Amino acid sequence: MACLDSSLTPWCLLPARAYPSCVINNVKLAVVGVGNNTSALVQGIAFHRGTGSLVGVHRPEVAGLAVGDIDVVAAFALSDGKVGKDLHEAIFVAPNNFPRLDVELPPAGVTVQAGLVDSTEVERVAHALEGAEVLLYSAPSGRPETAHAYAEAALRAGVAFVNTTSDAVAREPLWLTRFEEAGLPLLGDDLASQFGTSVVHRALLRLLEERGLTLVSSYQVNLGGTEDFRNLVENPNTKARSKLNAVGSDKVQMAPLGYLPHLRSQKIAHLNVEAQGWGGTAVSLDVRLKVDDPSGAAGVNIDLIRMAAAALRSGRGGYLAEAASYLKSPPGTAI
Amino acid sequence: MACLDSSLTPWCLLPARAYPSCVINNVKLAVVGVGNNTSALVQGIAFHRGTGSLVGVHRPEVAGLAVGDIDVVAAFALSDGKVGKDLHEAIFVAPNNFPRLDVELPPAGVTVQAGLVDSTEVERVAHALEGAEVLLYSAPSGRPETAHAYAEAALRAGVAFVNTTSDAVAREPLWLTRFEEAGLPLLGDDLASQFGTSVVHRALLRLLEERGLTLVSSYQVNLGGTEDFRNLVENPNTKARSKLNAVGSDKVQMAPLGYLPHLRSQKIAHLNVEAQGWGGTAVSLDVRLKVDDPSGAAGVNIDLIRMAAAALRSGRGGYLAEAASYLKSPPGTAI
Amino acid sequence: MACLDSSLTPWCLLPARAYPSCVINNVKLAVVGVGNNTSALVQGIAFHRGTGSLVGVHRPEVAGLAVGDIDVVAAFALSDGKVGKDLHEAIFVAPNNFPRLDVELPPAGVTVQAGLVDSTEVERVAHALEGAEVLLYSAPSGRPETAHAYAEAALRAGVAFVNTTSDAVAREPLWLTRFEEAGLPLLGDDLASQFGTSVVHRALLRLLEERGLTLVSSYQVNLGGTEDFRNLVENPNTKARSKLNAVGSDKVQMAPLGYLPHLRSQKIAHLNVEAQGWGGTAVSLDVRLKVDDPSGAAGVNIDLIRMAAAALRSGRGGYLAEAASYLKSPPGTAI
Amino acid sequence: MACLDSSLTPWCLLPARAYPSCVINNVKLAVVGVGNNTSALVQGIAFHRGTGSLVGVHRPEVAGLAVGDIDVVAAFALSDGKVGKDLHEAIFVAPNNFPRLDVELPPAGVTVQAGLVDSTEVERVAHALEGAEVLLYSAPSGRPETAHAYAEAALRAGVAFVNTTSDAVAREPLWLTRFEEAGLPLLGDDLASQFGTSVVHRALLRLLEERGLTLVSSYQVNLGGTEDFRNLVENPNTKARSKLNAVGSDKVQMAPLGYLPHLRSQKIAHLNVEAQGWGGTAVSLDVRLKVDDPSGAAGVNIDLIRMAAAALRSGRGGYLAEAASYLKSPPGTAI
Repeated sequence: MACLDSSLTPWCLLPARAYPSCVINNVKLAVVGVGNNTSALVQGIAFHRGTGSLVGVHRPEVAGLAVGDIDVVAAFALSDGKVGKDLHEAIFVAPNNFPRLDVELPPAGVTVQAGLVDSTEVERVAHALEGAEVLLYSAPSGRPETAHAYAEAALRAGVAFVNTTSDAVAREPLWLTRFEEAGLPLLGDDLASQFGTSVVHRALLRLLEERGLTLVSSYQVNLGGTEDFRNLVENPNTKARSKLNAVGSDKVQMAPLGYLPHLRSQKIAHLNVEAQGWGGTAVSLDVRLKVDDPSGAAGVNIDLIRMAAAALRSGRGGYLAEAASYLKSPPGTAI
Repeated sequence: MACLDSSLTPWCLLPARAYPSCVINNVKLAVVGVGNNTSALVQGIAFHRGTGSLVGVHRPEVAGLAVGDIDVVAAFALSDGKVGKDLHEAIFVAPNNFPRLDVELPPAGVTVQAGLVDSTEVERVAHALEGAEVLLYSAPSGRPETAHAYAEAALRAGVAFVNTTSDAVAREPLWLTRFEEAGLPLLGDDLASQFGTSVVHRALLRLLEERGLTLVSSYQVNLGGTEDFRNLVENPNTKARSKLNAVGSDKVQMAPLGYLPHLRSQKIAHLNVEAQGWGGTAVSLDVRLKVDDPSGAAGVNIDLIRMAAAALRSGRGGYLAEAASYLKSPPGTAI
Repeated sequence: MACLDSSLTPWCLLPARAYPSCVINNVKLAVVGVGNNTSALVQGIAFHRGTGSLVGVHRPEVAGLAVGDIDVVAAFALSDGKVGKDLHEAIFVAPNNFPRLDVELPPAGVTVQAGLVDSTEVERVAHALEGAEVLLYSAPSGRPETAHAYAEAALRAGVAFVNTTSDAVAREPLWLTRFEEAGLPLLGDDLASQFGTSVVHRALLRLLEERGLTLVSSYQVNLGGTEDFRNLVENPNTKARSKLNAVGSDKVQMAPLGYLPHLRSQKIAHLNVEAQGWGGTAVSLDVRLKVDDPSGAAGVNIDLIRMAAAALRSGRGGYLAEAASYLKSPPGTAI
Repeated sequence: MACLDSSLTPWCLLPARAYPSCVINNVKLAVVGVGNNTSALVQGIAFHRGTGSLVGVHRPEVAGLAVGDIDVVAAFALSDGKVGKDLHEAIFVAPNNFPRLDVELPPAGVTVQAGLVDSTEVERVAHALEGAEVLLYSAPSGRPETAHAYAEAALRAGVAFVNTTSDAVAREPLWLTRFEEAGLPLLGDDLASQFGTSVVHRALLRLLEERGLTLVSSYQVNLGGTEDFRNLVENPNTKARSKLNAVGSDKVQMAPLGYLPHLRSQKIAHLNVEAQGWGGTAVSLDVRLKVDDPSGAAGVNIDLIRMAAAALRSGRGGYLAEAASYLKSPPGTAI
């Protein structure tokens, strides 16, 4: 069977055993940001295609779309070291430090383009998005104007938008209305990791409540070694607010984030929960969680991208309720 | 308002402020076993009555019954040091080591009776159960014949039966049928702690699955200092099987239980979960949980007792589905 | 035997059983700072006098001086809430949050005086120090001029000086020389806790080295709830440098300090050490340490005070080598 | 330069870069037991020779002998799967589960011989030991007669003996005297890991004492996945006694060992220390230690072998005081 439509990418050249389902309706994805999260996403897709492995995959299929049914057709970055390079080369450029997975990565056939800095370049980006179905906005948090410029470009190009940053897009009623009216999906804001600190912390606090214990105090310490972490440490306000949303209790105290370069793309969290049980007796819970941070992002992005593509194809615009468990600040959250 | 029916106990003599709701329909409870769990139950009820505190209370009301609406009317034990003593004295006799809560405990007016050893004494116990509504079977696990003899006595006396041990009663179809036919509630088997190792371990494994991670391995270490723990260590088979039911994965390895007397009534668990996320990257979760073990049992018993009493009063016999989250081996579990 | 010389304090009025050794040569101590550390020191001395307990006491005797052989004769503070109050009342004024130990504290007979702010008041303080033997400088770190003004006052009054802050005094050659020449002991700088993060971290790294393992990486997270901690968080430079001295390896990364008010006077540290053993295999060490911070300071101050007093009495001025294990930045450390 | 004396092994065939120091006086080592510890020793030596790496090496030189200056000349095992195989093949036979290090292992040229079961075969083994200088007894603990038979063979063959098991040899005065009189070194008993639970636990308790804290309670949990661990779990008496020697405090409680196969050659320990500081305030220390168990043994054996060889060559018989930090039950320990 011919592979007419995917000719932009070299996946179809792989032997059939490795990736037999190269069909005409792969999702055409554009990404903003060629950082660790994009590296984990791209490598993870290739890993799955090469091995068939479903290890760590949340949903093998989303609306009929498999993990491998995604082709990157455009990528934007700001760094000189990445722009102009093939995507499969750019994902390994410093400060990226997500590890190289055990998978072959022939050239992607996608050259990283210069990203936009402000709204004067919306038109150029909109043009470059032609042919894409979903724009994954995976740049650093804390640049709301940039986020809005890309959202504008997506609207003009008729592309679904996934906002993984904590900058307000989907939870801004004006943006949500515009995407709804255009029949374009808008998923955001602020990615919840597939298995991160907030997910675990919230689950434990919920369990405590379900079982009738009384929360006394709790803290959370987050340590990481990625550039994303460094940005958060230097620019903590955006994230701090989002974090509070994520756990949702005023008895939970957040220690300052710690940027520890030697952790590379790993993240370590220390959680503590002090509670009281029947008769006022003490209950203590101490947790150490170690995850790969970009992998946790990619494991969620893979589902959001497919949800957005499926909704786009079936004409559903705006926010999708089924994305709720993947997002820390969905529409309805205070800005 | 007169307190006609509760005259067996001295609660009504407390000042109204301390316990105003002394009404005619308090649950009349008989307990088998005057160990730590009974100590925590009795002291916790008094603590609640004395302070009004709902700290650590799962359900303030169960079918209209408050935490304080329970009067112990009979208690059975085997140890010479406890039989013949007032209940409020017997709960502090060694090897009991649940701490003395900060609450006054005037004599209970209930003298601990000699428990039965085998079925020859069923009649005596059935007689002693007259006037009781619920029999809480809170003896050490591993004596199925004793459990069955008390169940028999409850049937004869028309009393609901709550089996907190891992010995099979409620999950034995024959016993369940007999209680159903008699219109008597039968709740069991094997109490799940209000917030114990199994509850936390299961919640974490469920979360892992919900988020799409792949479990690689897991272990659980349990350390405790109660007599109950010592029995389990010396007689591990019963519990081991029940534990496996409780977590429900063959990738979870249970380390042998450790009896560490200095922990007294506290229990410490170390849990580890190793998993793989997107792209096969490693996820590690290490948990240390410290709880008061008898308190965790009492916090569940307080609900089971009220469920059983309410069901008895409304004529519902047999097992109650709403008890499921409190029990490790409910009916339907392999014996 | 009469208690001629200690008539300034009411200790001698305690029954002989409680504190029989009230003799004429108690150390006369002045303290700067009536914070948690002073509270822990004063209460701990009273606890020891009242109970005879040597729990947590490093050295029952230092040069013949027992733990109880210390009388506070003067105290200085800046806060309006403390100045003018009896010392035993002032130690419980917020933001102090060291717990009230289980010991009776009759009025100390020492009224807290207004501390100095700059060098214009050195004369007043020097005058107030008359009769004292040791000045314990236990104010917040980060105010070197204040530290120097008190050191000046101590010199003028002929009093030994103990600097518990990270501000440079003893490690400044000029100050050290002046105290040496005056025959006055000068102990500092920067108190090492009796059992704090640095002590444990350093011991583990030393052990690693002794056994021949190769350190790969290490981190340290410190969380606390005292005012002292809040000052460090808001003014991190002073401490950060001192911390680096304390552990002494460039492979150790320090996460930012976390001020978590609910911890009150407790401090929690998370340490991690990653190393390699024979054949390059991995060794991991994770530690959680929970201590009472002011207690750790007082447990060291009690020895430094007695060392300083004994040296003063025997005419030894300047730094004392036997204080080395109690100090993070002794003379010779870079300023 | 010719490599006259080491012709029994193929090391000399390696390129000079990889192992230039192939000289005539390499230590000639015989090993009893071809388990994980031997695998770690043999692979670690090859790793060092191949890479020059000193990672995890305690002492680069012992009496002039480098890590690579050891040639295995004889090996004894009991398992059918190992006897008759080349040593470099036998070390990977199940139940061995020490990982394969990243190093090439050409055939060792040493065929594993059948070990002895009782004293009837001493003569055969003594004969096979001819040409060896050190016999490393690295069989499972709990078979004192076997240990004694090999010690006897070593005596007859004039070979130094290193006993890594907890079976009493060096701490039995009769054996010690016989080796002393023969001028043969005897090092034992019971190997202390290079960085194991006991070493860390003891260091922390010592630190506690040095700083003047009062120990309240402590526990230790050990989990492992090796065959050695399984033997200990099934035959706990020998080790339990040895463990108590190793930590040396009656306030330390040992939880039962847990055999968790999925850990393979890794060992995990959970340590807890509860103490009191100044004023009786609480100090808690929780440690999780993860090591590779056979690597920890090999990292010590490499030193003991060289000490024994050097002593043999210089005519020093009996026990060597410099081995003390490597052994849990040296001479003088109760049997």
